[in-house]
Amino acid sequence: MKAAKIRLYVEHPLGEGQTIPLTREQAHYLFGVMRLNISDAVSLFNGRDGEWRAEVAEAGKRNGSLRVDMRTRRLQMPPDLWLMFAPIKKARTDFIVEKATEMGAARICPVQTDFTNAERIRQDRLQAHAIEAAEQCGGTYVPEVCELQRLDRMLPGWPEDRQLMFCDESLVGAAKTLGKAQGEKWAILIGPEGGFSDAERQRLHSLPFAHAVSLGPRILRADTAAVAAMTVWQQALGDWG
Amino acid sequence: MKAAKIRLYVEHPLGEGQTIPLTREQAHYLFGVMRLNISDAVSLFNGRDGEWRAEVAEAGKRNGSLRVDMRTRRLQMPPDLWLMFAPIKKARTDFIVEKATEMGAARICPVQTDFTNAERIRQDRLQAHAIEAAEQCGGTYVPEVCELQRLDRMLPGWPEDRQLMFCDESLVGAAKTLGKAQGEKWAILIGPEGGFSDAERQRLHSLPFAHAVSLGPRILRADTAAVAAMTVWQQALGDWG
Repeated sequence: MKAAKIRLYVEHPLGEGQTIPLTREQAHYLFGVMRLNISDAVSLFNGRDGEWRAEVAEAGKRNGSLRVDMRTRRLQMPPDLWLMFAPIKKARTDFIVEKATEMGAARICPVQTDFTNAERIRQDRLQAHAIEAAEQCGGTYVPEVCELQRLDRMLPGWPEDRQLMFCDESLVGAAKTLGKAQGEKWAILIGPEGGFSDAERQRLHSLPFAHAVSLGPRILRADTAAVAAMTVWQQALGDWG
Repeated sequence: MKAAKIRLYVEHPLGEGQTIPLTREQAHYLFGVMRLNISDAVSLFNGRDGEWRAEVAEAGKRNGSLRVDMRTRRLQMPPDLWLMFAPIKKARTDFIVEKATEMGAARICPVQTDFTNAERIRQDRLQAHAIEAAEQCGGTYVPEVCELQRLDRMLPGWPEDRQLMFCDESLVGAAKTLGKAQGEKWAILIGPEGGFSDAERQRLHSLPFAHAVSLGPRILRADTAAVAAMTVWQQALGDWG
């Protein structure tokens, strides 16, 4: 039995003996680009049922199907961590979504802050990026990418049991205040390139569920800060222990 | 006195009253692109003398000069940390150089491992990336980018007093073994996308100065791993404390 070299995300439920119809794009990718043939192996995941080995059952130019034979990995859920970030230039926004998926965010929330330049985002495009990152990094889970929300409208209805870690460039000293006692549901908030406004910073510091951390003495770009902040959190509270 | 919005790296020594001649590219950037005029302010650094405020003294299409008036920040050296990485696709290699600069590497060393695809790198182009990253992130230091070296030729002559942290995907558990007692000179080694070869992994584990760490249960791309590994190191041993 040959091992699968290609990992593919599908929406279909996965289970032994299931037949998975392919979309036109998937058929083009598997048969046109990757040149798979009947009975070649593919790894499948749908974000819910773990990873399964499947074989090509029918191969056409615009369609085809796979037959699922066995589960190769269980679903591995990331910690209950949201990554909230202020969208920046397109390439770096894409990058943050990719990195958040690799680093193990459960949900990715673009937020509009006082100094956010992006007026709108393409949620569907960013969700596709998260899927691609999960395919690449061997993940069995795909974080949900939310629509753009305004930070000042999110904070009033903030869930009581979720802690919020935010990065404050004016602080010195690392994330020594993070403790497991504070609960298992968290969000990390990364500000825009211009930082938070004074009003936002003041408000964040006053929130009982918010925890300010420093990411060192140099100014980090937002995409660097996202990876660094998730590393700090994963080491202290997540599944890197 | 107006504050400078533009940061520029120059090679010239910096001191009060110095006149800094501009290269053709710098003159084009300052006067053609950014539209500065006589007596407008610019922040300068050269990686050695800290950050200085200067004013435009002469402005031409292809030349010009600045006059330095006062030091605004001391030189802030990063910790004595080398980032060694196996070059990957162009955009991601550029990205690693940018991130290593922001995260505070003192030296950036592209290395060829058994599974490295890149045959060669453009050292001058990568060095220019490091300079640009330092300009952007407010750094006063620019890490030196080395020429591509083969890992198997670097290890035999490895400096006795420098520790090496490498990331091993097969490990579980985070960087609990890093301790200040091991010394202040370090290097971080990031493997290529295909990981280290078995021979390399075995060799690395056998070196007395090498320390394996895990970066969590998901597979990280090399550029993500570079930022995450530097975060782990900076928190444990660097200047984020």
